[in-house]
Amino acid sequence: MAKKVGRQTFYCEKDISVLSFASVVGKKEHEGPLGDKFDVYSDDEFFGEETFEKAEIRMQTMAIDLALKKESFEEKDVDCIFAGDLLNQCVGSNYTARGRDVSFVGVYGACSTMALTLSLSTMMIEASAAKRAMAVTSSHFCSSERQFRFPLEYGGVRPQTSQWTVTGAGAVILGEGEEKPKIKAVTLGRTIDLGVKDMNNMGAAMAPAAADTIKAFLSDTKTKISDYDAVFTGDLGVVGSELLLELLQKDGIAPSNHNDCGVMIFDREKQDVHAGGSGCGCSASVLCSKILSDLENGKLKNILFCATGALMSPTSSLQGETIPSIAHLINIVGK
Amino acid sequence: MAKKVGRQTFYCEKDISVLSFASVVGKKEHEGPLGDKFDVYSDDEFFGEETFEKAEIRMQTMAIDLALKKESFEEKDVDCIFAGDLLNQCVGSNYTARGRDVSFVGVYGACSTMALTLSLSTMMIEASAAKRAMAVTSSHFCSSERQFRFPLEYGGVRPQTSQWTVTGAGAVILGEGEEKPKIKAVTLGRTIDLGVKDMNNMGAAMAPAAADTIKAFLSDTKTKISDYDAVFTGDLGVVGSELLLELLQKDGIAPSNHNDCGVMIFDREKQDVHAGGSGCGCSASVLCSKILSDLENGKLKNILFCATGALMSPTSSLQGETIPSIAHLINIVGK
Repeated sequence: MAKKVGRQTFYCEKDISVLSFASVVGKKEHEGPLGDKFDVYSDDEFFGEETFEKAEIRMQTMAIDLALKKESFEEKDVDCIFAGDLLNQCVGSNYTARGRDVSFVGVYGACSTMALTLSLSTMMIEASAAKRAMAVTSSHFCSSERQFRFPLEYGGVRPQTSQWTVTGAGAVILGEGEEKPKIKAVTLGRTIDLGVKDMNNMGAAMAPAAADTIKAFLSDTKTKISDYDAVFTGDLGVVGSELLLELLQKDGIAPSNHNDCGVMIFDREKQDVHAGGSGCGCSASVLCSKILSDLENGKLKNILFCATGALMSPTSSLQGETIPSIAHLINIVGK
Repeated sequence: MAKKVGRQTFYCEKDISVLSFASVVGKKEHEGPLGDKFDVYSDDEFFGEETFEKAEIRMQTMAIDLALKKESFEEKDVDCIFAGDLLNQCVGSNYTARGRDVSFVGVYGACSTMALTLSLSTMMIEASAAKRAMAVTSSHFCSSERQFRFPLEYGGVRPQTSQWTVTGAGAVILGEGEEKPKIKAVTLGRTIDLGVKDMNNMGAAMAPAAADTIKAFLSDTKTKISDYDAVFTGDLGVVGSELLLELLQKDGIAPSNHNDCGVMIFDREKQDVHAGGSGCGCSASVLCSKILSDLENGKLKNILFCATGALMSPTSSLQGETIPSIAHLINIVGK
């Protein structure tokens, strides 16, 4: 049974461990600075399928099956899959779950999905309603561009504040265990909107949500940012990251240990991604490769993973609405 | 801490009660057989707003605020809102949550959303991660028709198997308490797809998911369908309801106590809704009016609420995909 602290945070009382994890990415992500950290990549942007949507389903399927296989789990060893993605009606996740002998919970948290699915998986195990649960998400550059912006064939010029949707998927299996990185605490974010309308500047829209959730976590747990080895946001990119640090400094919080999954995944000098990576698959694939590996091998000991999501739709933006955002935070400790 | 039974079900060990609930509907729903059971209705399909999407946000907002007000709760008395809807990127829920001082979890379960948000709210309270949580959803005939089928101005003829998306919203506040209807058990569904492709016959696509979840619940809890006063599905309509009963009878389950929220909400003779009502707002508004009232006033004592969702998108259907479906089930007992 969890221990609720403050308004938005709970500590785990069980030893909820990262039993297994896997990442799958596309060609561009493999060519980036974390290229050799990912489990699988494909040079084919269709991943052998006929459509970009089916490619995304294929990536999620590969991530799930690999996470199971790594620890010799079968489907029946997991009680529930929590998954979501950016596609309308979350079809990437729904079709991945189809026919599997596992309960399925669909979520929508935009690019915060990896932290959201981890939060709910943790909650279900803390409630003793599941022995093991799986947190999954994905995004695909081509399916996202078509849906949120323009078909690629149109050749729209992207402004410098825009981010590049990561083609990638991540899957984490949580369950009770001793010898693995553990989920120590979870903070569920509030929906924040400071009035940004520009769909090509998501970092600016999401930074206030990241600041709000990090402040809520520190306040609820009565800890300092320097108590943690590293704070990973995802995916603010360079524009959003600068804004986040400005916002935190107003409250006297000056993290020297901040990095952003959208900045980490690409080489901005060489890869023409403008402000950095984005998409549910961005923080998911970085968490399920470098971050969790470093928690396993002792390079990291106590981190905050704070994934951010912009909660608009193309319809709401066309109707003149501003962009509400959210960030959920997980405190993970090394073994 | 919950007690997990079987593969998909858990019993609550806390007294998790329905502390408050509220429903908001449109004109057609108010003219139906349950008209006088809903808390609020509007003759204006825009609910005073400029767009159908904003009308949906208005309905969710009214349902939340009314559920709080009925029991003199303030926003700070609730720790988390779980909400979802049918709109792309779930903007009905995201914009409703904007600026509220409450953690927010977005879900996507199509028309199963009321049962899904109740399941997760229950789980969070069982985990002691929240004292009170709120489950919310909505749908709107006009925003749904435009998004999933055709703009209304096109005047497409609807086949007899099609259902009419309910304009409605429901909100439930759960928390520990004694004198109210209680959540006794929860079964989270699997994603089932028996190959139906017709977006105008959702009942047929969803019936196998309802049958699967009801069978899982009975098997996990080792109970019989006759142990319950009533089984409410939502929203199979008449076509899906007949198929559900056929599927259950194959396993020797013959419920004499079944009703469907999509059948209950409209008068099919007079209201030209073909196979019945549908949409997240259908089972939500029926639960948050007649069903929970009858559990409060003693007419019902022990029921199953099994909300069903069809998990396709217009894109997946255009790409030739079949329709995966899901159903989540809540066992609620009277006070």
